[in-house]
Amino acid sequence: KPHTDCLSMHQVMRLPGMIDVHVHLREPGATHKEDFETGTSAALAGGVTMICAMPNTNPALTDVTALNYISELASQKAKCDYALFAGASEENTDSVSLLASKVAGLKMYMNDTFTTLKLDDFEVCSQHMKNWPNHLPLCVHAEGATLSTALLLASWNKRPLHVCHVARKQEILAIKKAKEMGMQVTCEVSPHHLFISSEDMDVQSPLSKVKPPICTRDDVQALWDNLSVIDVFATDHAPHLISEKMEHGVPGFPGLETALPLLLNAVNEGKLSMADILSRFHTNPKRIFNLPDQPDTFIEVDMTQTMTVPSMPAYSKAGWTPFAGRTLKGVVHRVVLRGEVAYLEGKVLVGAGFGQDVRKWPAQLPVPSVSLVP
Amino acid sequence: KPHTDCLSMHQVMRLPGMIDVHVHLREPGATHKEDFETGTSAALAGGVTMICAMPNTNPALTDVTALNYISELASQKAKCDYALFAGASEENTDSVSLLASKVAGLKMYMNDTFTTLKLDDFEVCSQHMKNWPNHLPLCVHAEGATLSTALLLASWNKRPLHVCHVARKQEILAIKKAKEMGMQVTCEVSPHHLFISSEDMDVQSPLSKVKPPICTRDDVQALWDNLSVIDVFATDHAPHLISEKMEHGVPGFPGLETALPLLLNAVNEGKLSMADILSRFHTNPKRIFNLPDQPDTFIEVDMTQTMTVPSMPAYSKAGWTPFAGRTLKGVVHRVVLRGEVAYLEGKVLVGAGFGQDVRKWPAQLPVPSVSLVP
Ligand SMILES: [Zn+2]
Ligand SMILES: [Zn+2]
Ligand SMILES: [Zn+2]
Ligand SMILES: [Zn+2]
Ligand SMILES: [Zn+2]
Ligand SMILES: [Zn+2]
Ligand SMILES: [Zn+2]
Ligand SMILES: [Zn+2]
Repeated sequence: KPHTDCLSMHQVMRLPGMIDVHVHLREPGATHKEDFETGTSAALAGGVTMICAMPNTNPALTDVTALNYISELASQKAKCDYALFAGASEENTDSVSLLASKVAGLKMYMNDTFTTLKLDDFEVCSQHMKNWPNHLPLCVHAEGATLSTALLLASWNKRPLHVCHVARKQEILAIKKAKEMGMQVTCEVSPHHLFISSEDMDVQSPLSKVKPPICTRDDVQALWDNLSVIDVFATDHAPHLISEKMEHGVPGFPGLETALPLLLNAVNEGKLSMADILSRFHTNPKRIFNLPDQPDTFIEVDMTQTMTVPSMPAYSKAGWTPFAGRTLKGVVHRVVLRGEVAYLEGKVLVGAGFGQDVRKWPAQLPVPSVSLVP
Repeated sequence: KPHTDCLSMHQVMRLPGMIDVHVHLREPGATHKEDFETGTSAALAGGVTMICAMPNTNPALTDVTALNYISELASQKAKCDYALFAGASEENTDSVSLLASKVAGLKMYMNDTFTTLKLDDFEVCSQHMKNWPNHLPLCVHAEGATLSTALLLASWNKRPLHVCHVARKQEILAIKKAKEMGMQVTCEVSPHHLFISSEDMDVQSPLSKVKPPICTRDDVQALWDNLSVIDVFATDHAPHLISEKMEHGVPGFPGLETALPLLLNAVNEGKLSMADILSRFHTNPKRIFNLPDQPDTFIEVDMTQTMTVPSMPAYSKAGWTPFAGRTLKGVVHRVVLRGEVAYLEGKVLVGAGFGQDVRKWPAQLPVPSVSLVP
């Protein structure tokens, strides 16, 4: 199906806009790493039309004052649509649910990572699990044995739970078992845990630091072997300057500009189907996080075109990527967001502030999703 | 009630023999640290008439060959009665339950400690939880977040679980919550976690290494605040030579000779009642581990006598104690084991081989427990 809005002829496939439920935009507090404008530009360049922004900013999004402040910054600068996560803290167990209808969900940090929101107290975690409305999303960073604590508390509180960035064999098997036991647990996996093992990267280098870490080939294989257990693909886009990585080993990788090309390339390699991508990078995120349809929104990808990942992707301020030099077949050609061409062949075309907070949209009745014309 | 079998007059109180369900006797494999004779002598000197011996020996007690071998060693040398634990390994998930009727229970090591039996695999732990007979004791070394994994697997497998040496606030609160949720979970606490905090000991010194570690005063207080959650007192007697501690920081403390005096002293200080000791160091161990009554067996303690813990207690080959120098009011005066005076005023009086494997005794009907004459 050739189309003619570009100079060259090519095959494009129309897909719904991707939805990335795990993104760190670093604003406010560390806008030299990323901000709402650069981060959402990177999203659009990666075929992502909606993101959920994590609350471990400075100030962290843990109360209504911070929500109002950060919400204002986002509305002025975001280019794609978004929702903002609230963060669980030691102090806000009784109050954070006041934000429930206005945020993407509640994020609980149960391990040490790049955050000030780490929760050490079993009882505090338990209170958050109990107090956050049962029908609204509650996400945990809970790796290794801590995942068991999260599952146990969710089970005791009979509540749904979304587990961020599953990376290890033990973790995906625990979640598989939890699902078999009837728990309402969902999980996401990040492209860097699907496409990088400790055999592909020097795991001693500070550049390779990420939480959860880059794992063994066995762990990576277990993720692929249990694809049916993975509900969501999410980038955990966590930009740091390369100099900060090298000096302080701060954990995190950028990922918005490379996620969809990596997944499309896996389709071309026969490792994934297009349906696998659409369910995990659009439909399930919408369902699990109760996100609205974006009207007149779609993306076009070219499954025949090849690109080499540049060492500095165009939009993220991170200025580096762990996928530099990989040749990927399958690229994002065009993004149409609410009727506007937001991205075309390497260029983001909408201005700062075009993005909208989807939690401010009137509650929708379910509508048919954008028709797919493969 | 004065009695006259000794030279001096004194007040004694008759109690049932203490039962210590968590003891490392180091035989076979490290008999320079302890052996069945010295370890069980230390037990008698501490008012303990029955011990359950841990399986992390060399060879480890993980199959019938090792059981027969270790059983023979024990029968020749033990001075108090005993049962031997089987150890869960990666290899014996399908076979270890063949030993079930002959051992104290199954021990699973879910954290790194002084053992070769560490289980890393979620699925292996799950298999053990499933295959070990539901009515027989299954104990876990599962500290920190690993405790959640143990609780989760026990819950999913709807089986009873005994948690060894609870030390931290988070752990005792998790077990409290598990009990509230209706789980069949029991737990033990070791005297060194009740009576030593990180303010009492240089936790950087290799001498202070123990798993779980010596914790904060807050953790210790949480144990005391939740005494009702603690089912069992058990020493986790884990002897190492002081030279091995200083050179290699091997984890573990001896405890058999000091446990009961420490607990009696706490009664004198008003921190415990005598009933608290009897339930946790006799009745509950018997019930949880399905251990038989020892006929004509009792101990006598003198609650008015004071002793200073020596730097080298008399019987354990460890040759040191973390309690050296403490002045304790309440001492073990005499131990009568199956009609024989097994210990009197500092001297163990029964020979090697007097101790019996209680799992070889004919199954008993429940009998009234030894009457207490306080
Ligand atoms: Zn085109
Ligand atoms: Zn995380
Ligand atoms: Zn993250
Ligand atoms: Zn859709
Ligand atoms: Zn006497
Ligand atoms: Zn242990
Ligand atoms: Zn032990
Ligand atoms: Zn009794």
